[in-house]
Amino acid sequence: MALIVQKYGGTSVASPERIQAVAERVIRTRKAGDQVVVVLSAMSGETDRLLALAHRVSPKPDERELDLLLSTGERVTIALLAMALRERGYAARSFTGRQVGIVTDDVHTRARIERVAADRVRDALAEDVIPVVAGFQGINEKSDVTTLGRGGSDTTAVALAAALKADRCDIYTDVDGVYTTDPNIVPTASRLDKISYEEMLEMASLGAKVLQTRSVEFAMKYLVPVRVLSSFTDAPTGTLVTKEDRDMEQVVVSGVTYDRNQAKITLLGVPDRPGIAARLFGGIAKEDIIVDMIIQNISQEGLTDISFTVPRADAKKAVSLVSTLVREIGANDVQLTEDIAKVSIVGVGMRSHSGVAATMFETLAREGINIMMISTSEIKISCVVDAKYTELAVRALHEAFELGTPA
Amino acid sequence: MALIVQKYGGTSVASPERIQAVAERVIRTRKAGDQVVVVLSAMSGETDRLLALAHRVSPKPDERELDLLLSTGERVTIALLAMALRERGYAARSFTGRQVGIVTDDVHTRARIERVAADRVRDALAEDVIPVVAGFQGINEKSDVTTLGRGGSDTTAVALAAALKADRCDIYTDVDGVYTTDPNIVPTASRLDKISYEEMLEMASLGAKVLQTRSVEFAMKYLVPVRVLSSFTDAPTGTLVTKEDRDMEQVVVSGVTYDRNQAKITLLGVPDRPGIAARLFGGIAKEDIIVDMIIQNISQEGLTDISFTVPRADAKKAVSLVSTLVREIGANDVQLTEDIAKVSIVGVGMRSHSGVAATMFETLAREGINIMMISTSEIKISCVVDAKYTELAVRALHEAFELGTPA
Repeated sequence: MALIVQKYGGTSVASPERIQAVAERVIRTRKAGDQVVVVLSAMSGETDRLLALAHRVSPKPDERELDLLLSTGERVTIALLAMALRERGYAARSFTGRQVGIVTDDVHTRARIERVAADRVRDALAEDVIPVVAGFQGINEKSDVTTLGRGGSDTTAVALAAALKADRCDIYTDVDGVYTTDPNIVPTASRLDKISYEEMLEMASLGAKVLQTRSVEFAMKYLVPVRVLSSFTDAPTGTLVTKEDRDMEQVVVSGVTYDRNQAKITLLGVPDRPGIAARLFGGIAKEDIIVDMIIQNISQEGLTDISFTVPRADAKKAVSLVSTLVREIGANDVQLTEDIAKVSIVGVGMRSHSGVAATMFETLAREGINIMMISTSEIKISCVVDAKYTELAVRALHEAFELGTPA
Repeated sequence: MALIVQKYGGTSVASPERIQAVAERVIRTRKAGDQVVVVLSAMSGETDRLLALAHRVSPKPDERELDLLLSTGERVTIALLAMALRERGYAARSFTGRQVGIVTDDVHTRARIERVAADRVRDALAEDVIPVVAGFQGINEKSDVTTLGRGGSDTTAVALAAALKADRCDIYTDVDGVYTTDPNIVPTASRLDKISYEEMLEMASLGAKVLQTRSVEFAMKYLVPVRVLSSFTDAPTGTLVTKEDRDMEQVVVSGVTYDRNQAKITLLGVPDRPGIAARLFGGIAKEDIIVDMIIQNISQEGLTDISFTVPRADAKKAVSLVSTLVREIGANDVQLTEDIAKVSIVGVGMRSHSGVAATMFETLAREGINIMMISTSEIKISCVVDAKYTELAVRALHEAFELGTPA
């Protein structure tokens, strides 16, 4: 008998009918002899509906209040699923983030989980009751409701799986796994059977929207096998996110991803002396803005240009922070470029294969796509390009690394 | 500087625009020099929307889950009002039932408040922060969410006012006070400036939907002056619900009320021996069904008929309970009559005036309305009549006791 955490995303619980379907699926897992803990998102569209309400009373809603507001979405779905399971004769009990004992830090709207007690979930399992847990939410030390950011329910599921030492965490969504790239852009994109945590982490942080980054970090840290699969089919396939193994290294590039939610900020004519970068990025970090890529040009006549990317939602805030600094340090100007996209290739096989970067740059050059910024890690290479080339770049790279299914 | 608890009902917070209006009103009270604690209901329609969702997954939803589901409605409005107040430069903080420390018994969907800690509310007031509290909800000893039943936010407000020793509890609603009867039925119905707790209690329990009964019980027990007024006008009038005084006794009848949400159950041919009634009503009470009026006819040949009324929503459940008993005790039959209405007159002045009941019965007789059941208390007389006569009975009684405004 395995213990499986099943997480269902917003489209999987979008209506009472879909919730009934989830109930049936949970029951099938139980009938197959496994124990199940369910984690749910809010109905798709609900978070946006609540955000719209908030913006109608306040252009910049207070974040503590926003968290309380948004946390209602999952409370609705867990109550409904528990009802649906009981209706089918299965004991089930809903638990909010607080009731599960999901304690987070104090950063409202994107809190990080600090610990998961899960006592009531364990008690429920011991009583043969199916626990139905609200994703996305926790409480801070003051006992105020916090939320984990978009996609936070994935993190709830994996963190809970880790705390319960579950055998697997199944993430049900509206796609049937992780693909070599976005099938909307490249129709021949193929589903990966298996992917390493490291690759998934790069894919997630690079913009493949299948799993929230932090959920993969949790899975990697606690070695929770995570399966991504569709709640809209009965195929028991999907993609397994797991420890790296030999097979994986044979593949040079596992996937091509893109991210259009970044913005580039450039400081022109920055005096090239120690401590400037520290002040710049220290100030931005203090506002909880995540800086992704940073490029500093070669200094000319004691002045240099610094470019960096931030999430587009934080761009205006970052520019206003930086503008203050520009005056203090005597730089020339700040430029904001929002029409950019980051296109990346990811693969653990890169470590043992040379020439991957060259192939990427040549491929983009052949299509006449100018590269604005480059960043690399052991298992990924990212290029920032003009947003209008996103699809073209993704298609060319997907083909260059032969990722498509045979026609 | 007075401390005022202001409660706003569902129509008063039905939209972001209405919530903005509530924020303005709260600020006006603050500017007038008073401290304010706000208690909110869910947006009107929201509870019904959530109930409809529940019924789409389960015809008889589990009540623990239903409470979690319904409790989301007030969490939305308190977050939005706190945002709106902050937007206007006023420090405000939302508190859920749990955060206020509203501890109830374990009867889901109609829990009773056992205690109100209110520590965080006091702390907020001490910091000059406006506390915005979720009505209708609490938690039980297991820390599960409970709700107080329809109109429960009134009870939250009054209980909180009692706990905080507030100077007054203002209940904002969509009517500007308590009327001598329903103005929809009698256009000349007039607003009462003042009414005693006892009268209000009778009015509330008899179906005047202005205040939840339990809120009036709380107010009476802790002597909290309650003012009922409209959030749709700027008139600072309304009706004050307070301790009985001399003036009130001068008025024989204060109001005429009606209740169409009752059903009559009759047991025919019940063996007339001790213990039968105890078994009957004991069994019904155990299911938390509230029996209102009870009539037992004179025994003939050792058999008697027993009629009683219950809330219409509980009628089917009560009949099925009673049907079991009918077989056990050997009664003849059970009849259910749903098309009834209870019409009542209320007034503390009745105690010192005779002939009030006679006037009531004569008035109904003159209109050809048959009285099915009668019940009386010190300050009210109720008659159960065929539902189709409701309006006629109310109009006739309102006129007979000269309650209308002079034309």
